[in-house]
Amino acid sequence: MNQQHHKLSNVTHLVQGELLGSADFLVQGLASLEQANENQISFVNGQKYLPQAILSKAGVLIITSDLQKELPKTKQYIIVDNPYLAFAQLTHAFEIQGQHSGIEETAQIHSSAIVADSAYIGHYAVIGENCVIGDATRIQSHAKIDRGVEVGKNCFIDSHVTITGCAKLGDRVRVHANTVIGSEGFGFAPYQAKWHRIAQLGSVQIGNDVRIGSNCCIDRGALDDTILSNGVIIDNLVQIAHNVNIGENTAIAANSGIAGSTVIGKNCILAGACGVSGHIKIADNVTLTGMSMVTKSILESGTYSSGTGSFESKQWRKMVIGLRQLADVPLTKLVKRLDHIQTQIESIESTLKMRK
Amino acid sequence: MNQQHHKLSNVTHLVQGELLGSADFLVQGLASLEQANENQISFVNGQKYLPQAILSKAGVLIITSDLQKELPKTKQYIIVDNPYLAFAQLTHAFEIQGQHSGIEETAQIHSSAIVADSAYIGHYAVIGENCVIGDATRIQSHAKIDRGVEVGKNCFIDSHVTITGCAKLGDRVRVHANTVIGSEGFGFAPYQAKWHRIAQLGSVQIGNDVRIGSNCCIDRGALDDTILSNGVIIDNLVQIAHNVNIGENTAIAANSGIAGSTVIGKNCILAGACGVSGHIKIADNVTLTGMSMVTKSILESGTYSSGTGSFESKQWRKMVIGLRQLADVPLTKLVKRLDHIQTQIESIESTLKMRK
Amino acid sequence: MNQQHHKLSNVTHLVQGELLGSADFLVQGLASLEQANENQISFVNGQKYLPQAILSKAGVLIITSDLQKELPKTKQYIIVDNPYLAFAQLTHAFEIQGQHSGIEETAQIHSSAIVADSAYIGHYAVIGENCVIGDATRIQSHAKIDRGVEVGKNCFIDSHVTITGCAKLGDRVRVHANTVIGSEGFGFAPYQAKWHRIAQLGSVQIGNDVRIGSNCCIDRGALDDTILSNGVIIDNLVQIAHNVNIGENTAIAANSGIAGSTVIGKNCILAGACGVSGHIKIADNVTLTGMSMVTKSILESGTYSSGTGSFESKQWRKMVIGLRQLADVPLTKLVKRLDHIQTQIESIESTLKMRK
Repeated sequence: MNQQHHKLSNVTHLVQGELLGSADFLVQGLASLEQANENQISFVNGQKYLPQAILSKAGVLIITSDLQKELPKTKQYIIVDNPYLAFAQLTHAFEIQGQHSGIEETAQIHSSAIVADSAYIGHYAVIGENCVIGDATRIQSHAKIDRGVEVGKNCFIDSHVTITGCAKLGDRVRVHANTVIGSEGFGFAPYQAKWHRIAQLGSVQIGNDVRIGSNCCIDRGALDDTILSNGVIIDNLVQIAHNVNIGENTAIAANSGIAGSTVIGKNCILAGACGVSGHIKIADNVTLTGMSMVTKSILESGTYSSGTGSFESKQWRKMVIGLRQLADVPLTKLVKRLDHIQTQIESIESTLKMRK
Repeated sequence: MNQQHHKLSNVTHLVQGELLGSADFLVQGLASLEQANENQISFVNGQKYLPQAILSKAGVLIITSDLQKELPKTKQYIIVDNPYLAFAQLTHAFEIQGQHSGIEETAQIHSSAIVADSAYIGHYAVIGENCVIGDATRIQSHAKIDRGVEVGKNCFIDSHVTITGCAKLGDRVRVHANTVIGSEGFGFAPYQAKWHRIAQLGSVQIGNDVRIGSNCCIDRGALDDTILSNGVIIDNLVQIAHNVNIGENTAIAANSGIAGSTVIGKNCILAGACGVSGHIKIADNVTLTGMSMVTKSILESGTYSSGTGSFESKQWRKMVIGLRQLADVPLTKLVKRLDHIQTQIESIESTLKMRK
Repeated sequence: MNQQHHKLSNVTHLVQGELLGSADFLVQGLASLEQANENQISFVNGQKYLPQAILSKAGVLIITSDLQKELPKTKQYIIVDNPYLAFAQLTHAFEIQGQHSGIEETAQIHSSAIVADSAYIGHYAVIGENCVIGDATRIQSHAKIDRGVEVGKNCFIDSHVTITGCAKLGDRVRVHANTVIGSEGFGFAPYQAKWHRIAQLGSVQIGNDVRIGSNCCIDRGALDDTILSNGVIIDNLVQIAHNVNIGENTAIAANSGIAGSTVIGKNCILAGACGVSGHIKIADNVTLTGMSMVTKSILESGTYSSGTGSFESKQWRKMVIGLRQLADVPLTKLVKRLDHIQTQIESIESTLKMRK
């Protein structure tokens, strides 16, 4: 009950595909090959899914021209070049969205705030002094848009999001529930064994088409701004510290953290739970695999990894003991000793030969 | 001041124990052996706590029959088979809970939502279209129960929780503060160097007796549903990505993250800060120790671990250098060289003997 | 537009410095050496920033007496002993803060709660039964201060914070957005293959001058209390489990987690994403570098580290294979074999010499 219904001709038009089937067929949802019923549409994401496609009960399959030839003509198809992209596009057609405009009467909007007529402001949302909310932007219930924050057009800000620190968001930005943007960075001056708070005066600049998941923290800068460039996508529970600068279209998966003032390039991919130290630089097109630990700048694009992998625990304990030995027994010295011994043996052997 | 008061006879009845003491004695709270005063009750969780039990000022001790015989008869006791379980049961009797039914007048409940008469809905909670809230369920202040969400009986949903994506929760489910359930999974199709959002159409199914801590994220599925089976317990700040499926009674400690479409078996225990890759399978009865990194399926039950343990930092830096050598110097080759050298030496020695 | 304006004489007075410049000069903000314009003030944090200081357009520089002598006399200076501390102090002067007192009419305050006249309570905040809110404390919108919670003087509690479990906060405590304090600890008694919830009856004690970031979790104790001592500072997304006790002025960076009942000393520094096991003890003055994994007590002050560092992925895979060998090939045994072989060779060589 969680999806819209559409005529097959419309669906085909949306993905600019070619239809092999009945234009009036009513598509009642998108589903995986295994789960789809005869009223639903599914997609074949490459050769290896052909066996599942043959077994699928889906009423319609999105597929390439080549692969379709290997399937029975009795089914309905939408022919496209890139079935996965077509699927991504179609999910939007089948998504049920909430209300699109209007201001709930329980919302608190400061008299100086500018809210577009086409925006939606949910129950108990609070929009502060001098805020700007752009066209067709939807602010869900209980969101807090603090003084001086600006949100562009066609944005989606989910419930319990806090945006403060005079952050500026571009267009088509999506911020999921309970995320905090523009809160104070972790800046303290140590003096006489105490921590002296440095009030954070910078802000946050978020470009267009940025996506931030749930329960994330994007801190405001200390003096200059924290920056997320156009097209950056961020998963849940991610920490972006003050003055971090992330390049275009970089993706950061859940539980990762980037420490202060680090600069990350364009088109990078950080898998889950990566940790990146502060004040370093990551080049463009760098991929970090899950749980990577980066303490120094990475200046060449490529794929980088950390960690030991997983061990059965008894074996792991032996390995950890081995690591302690490894600190004290440099392997290169062992190799040198072996080389030296080899030389000694060869010398002995030649001595023995001479004396034969 | 944070606990209830009960007569000792009632307390004994609750844990189905045998009382050695005064039925009318008023128990004014539960406490640890060290902290308990003469009006409080404590418990002896095994032989090794006997010395502390002897010193304890607790007015009553919960204890096994065997251990009680080693303590003075002048004290009061409740005799049970499993003192730790009895303690767990008693905590509920001494817990002070908030209001149990009624709807605060500031709550916003959509006219199509069905809320049980015995439910409690707190201040500024928002209950959306077609939601169902079961008997005796308590929804705390500021919670957002979005369109189409169903919550079973006797549930507890704490403040600032966001439940969306048409999630369905069973009975006796507890969700702690600021957690997000049913938010959009991290699904994007890469195309022409940009990320194309895949609207998430699946939902979240949560069984009975599930417990989810604070500031967690349980994402809705892409097409099919994300599943937490009956009896699953989850600590704080845990990430459960789209289409993850977690088996009955599995426990996941704080800061852990499970990537998309991974299936975890029954009765598993994941200690804190574990990371599990996407699209893999973990068997039943698997235990992962803290900070484990799992990148491949684990098909046999058992205990698994990762990581280096901790080092004094100078020693750690030497170990890290050793790791870099380890990549280039396979230990098995060193062993083969040693074996070869040993053979050469033996050959030399026998030559020398022959020539003696 | 995010900062206040001040006369240079006032600014100098605030940091107890000596002014070389015009008392009436209007300072329009703080900025970094690179970004500052002629109306702004910046600071020189040591010898190595002199080249940037020479190039800086800042209207005023905060600097030590010694370093000032190396810069042109044409600029304006504030001479202090510790420019970084002076900068920290000045950030407060330039910070724009929200409303400072009064109760928004949409706030829900229980009739039994005591709220100081000089406190500020934001929109849709909920203050429960028997709560106490001290002088000049600011509670931002949507905060939930649950039954029995006490907040001291001059505190700042940001939006969507949940404080429950009868937590007690000292003076000058700052809690950033969407953090949860006093929620239920992760306590369950396993019995007959199920988890039996242990209702948490302890509370949380937070000292003076404590700072807690956004999206953190500080659980209430099981029976006794969870304790954060005076001067503790905590970054974002940090987990503090039940009955943890953290000593004065200890700093914990983002994404770290401390498991139950662990005691951490004074003046410790935990860098980002550290994991500390439960029921252990960390001495005073311990520093953990980023992503440290601590499974045993650390009884001596010093710096400790964990992890493999990062590798180019192909090299990493070879290293991981090496780790598996390391579990089975103890390096100390290899060294013994080498020593033994060396002895054999020396014996052979002396034999050969004798027979010359």
